[in-house]
Amino acid sequence: MTHGPRYPALIASLPETVPFVGPEVQERSRGAPFVARLGANESVFGPSPGALAAMRAEAAEIWKYADPTGHDLKAALAAKLGCTPENIVVGEGIDGLLGYLVRLLVAPGDAVVTSDGAYPTFNYHVAGYGGVLHKVPYAGDAEDLPALIAKATQVDAKLIYFANPDNPMGSWCDGAAIVAALDALPQGTLLALDEAYIEFAPTGTTPDLAFDDPRLIRLRTFSKGYGMAGARVGYGLGAPALIRAFDKIRNHFGMNRAAVAGAVAALSDDAFLADVVQRVTDAKTRIAAIARDNGLTPLPSATNFVTIDCGRDGAFAKAVLNALISQGIFVRMPFVAPQDRCIRISAGLPADLDALAVALPKALKTARGT
Amino acid sequence: MTHGPRYPALIASLPETVPFVGPEVQERSRGAPFVARLGANESVFGPSPGALAAMRAEAAEIWKYADPTGHDLKAALAAKLGCTPENIVVGEGIDGLLGYLVRLLVAPGDAVVTSDGAYPTFNYHVAGYGGVLHKVPYAGDAEDLPALIAKATQVDAKLIYFANPDNPMGSWCDGAAIVAALDALPQGTLLALDEAYIEFAPTGTTPDLAFDDPRLIRLRTFSKGYGMAGARVGYGLGAPALIRAFDKIRNHFGMNRAAVAGAVAALSDDAFLADVVQRVTDAKTRIAAIARDNGLTPLPSATNFVTIDCGRDGAFAKAVLNALISQGIFVRMPFVAPQDRCIRISAGLPADLDALAVALPKALKTARGT
Repeated sequence: MTHGPRYPALIASLPETVPFVGPEVQERSRGAPFVARLGANESVFGPSPGALAAMRAEAAEIWKYADPTGHDLKAALAAKLGCTPENIVVGEGIDGLLGYLVRLLVAPGDAVVTSDGAYPTFNYHVAGYGGVLHKVPYAGDAEDLPALIAKATQVDAKLIYFANPDNPMGSWCDGAAIVAALDALPQGTLLALDEAYIEFAPTGTTPDLAFDDPRLIRLRTFSKGYGMAGARVGYGLGAPALIRAFDKIRNHFGMNRAAVAGAVAALSDDAFLADVVQRVTDAKTRIAAIARDNGLTPLPSATNFVTIDCGRDGAFAKAVLNALISQGIFVRMPFVAPQDRCIRISAGLPADLDALAVALPKALKTARGT
Repeated sequence: MTHGPRYPALIASLPETVPFVGPEVQERSRGAPFVARLGANESVFGPSPGALAAMRAEAAEIWKYADPTGHDLKAALAAKLGCTPENIVVGEGIDGLLGYLVRLLVAPGDAVVTSDGAYPTFNYHVAGYGGVLHKVPYAGDAEDLPALIAKATQVDAKLIYFANPDNPMGSWCDGAAIVAALDALPQGTLLALDEAYIEFAPTGTTPDLAFDDPRLIRLRTFSKGYGMAGARVGYGLGAPALIRAFDKIRNHFGMNRAAVAGAVAALSDDAFLADVVQRVTDAKTRIAAIARDNGLTPLPSATNFVTIDCGRDGAFAKAVLNALISQGIFVRMPFVAPQDRCIRISAGLPADLDALAVALPKALKTARGT
């Protein structure tokens, strides 16, 4: 044996993979910045003026660790949502919270259920803790909660991942359908309901269930509607016993102090959020029009992006994607067939979409090899 | 069975403990803010003007996720330290990196070695991953690296935790002593060398070993000398194979974008850092004088705090601590005997230390019950 660390078998078995390649890597690779950053479902409309001012003010206090209990943010969220602080866990984005949640529930060999083609970072965490992932196909272009629950029953899953609205397809289901589907949820299975895009969804998309309901945890974020992806503030809403369990394992001093102050301030500007939602709606309308102008089919979306059916297979959509990227338009696409016939375009500023309108026909021409 | 999550046995066995209670909790409990915040070894001297400006500027870009590779910060660190980016992992403070490191190496039942009374957050992570912690006593008021290595050999430990300079005692050893001690390090044991306070230590405190040395990982932070505790930026320095392993498990999109920009900027102002170190030196001189004026014994310190021997047992030191806290002076103390005869006071502004000078004699009077 030579000097060096000894990794447990599980760790040794894991690939050094990255759930997503960031646009900065691609920019360095192509030697130029992107013209339009429309690939990560970030909000180009940014944080609210109040949130921005709060982050800048709190930067002067950055020498202090953040309150490890997240007291002020939980209080603000509880007041806004009509729950108690005991229903809330704050964490380093939904990504961080998903990691904690998987760690809390999944021992090596434990079964977990998700949709084939759903959020890869969840799968990354499940693999990282040795869980056995069972995947259910999308029904059309939507995650299929009854099928996920049926699979969980079959494999005795500890955890189900379900995003509503869905990423990468933009589809959604009514909260009442979730409530109905949960009647079949096996005891001992928790539903992780990823509501990252809930601010863009129609009223009634979140299930009308008590925050104390022990069957699910809702995961939300300041990364999308609130325009603070780089701040890393997410939260989970669930029964107090589950919420307390996070305290067993989380990085108690893991939150950025200025980010938390920004999140608190963000919650007090409903008009800004409503304006963002309107601007996103307008941008989605424009993206859909651009798609149609080029003979493509935009899918309905309850998120801040539009998934566009390119009408052929995954190889063709990938060629379109690559041709957009080579023109400086950062976009992404679903990973799994048949959803990989699509590309996914985040809401952008008018100038971003102007660039898209110019680039898309060229990209299609390139992809068609004509 | 009723509805609810099923926790693995390890998780079920963990307490809902917090490694440290934050000052905000104490402030809410006492109904008033602290007069002087001298308990968490934060840097009241704050971030450099350049770092502050960078964080404020980058707040406008907070709608973007941070580069998951940490390219720019790694490049800046590599240039400053004379290593390559492949020697560097960036994470959510040393706390976050310790969590990743323990997860990388420690399977349930694996042996880990630390000093009895050393950093509790490390112990928290070891317990959280089911490691078996073996504790070695301090030698005097210093961590005892040869004894830690001997214990690791005896118990076949995968990981040793050693802080140099030490927290909570402020003691330190020469880097050459670390190099010499490592001759006895068993193969398959990694030394986690916590250098959180290295900016305050004498030249030569870090071991003169290649960053590629597979026997150790150095953990450093922007929380102490750089005055950015609330930003949550730490980094590890080690052999590329170990550094790459973090990519298997870390939260790739876990860093705050403004914090990273601030850290990059902080590295370019050596004069500011030197000034902070001087101000910390001055503050430590003053704290030591205040201690001596009250008949107490300040211990030598290579950190940004002074540990003060209160001359009696832990109960007495705790009474002094409580009496300081009740006067609005936030301080902490070692957890374990005989080091718990001390209280630990972080460097402060002159006004903070004025308040300490007033409060300490009263606290001693209270503690002595006279």
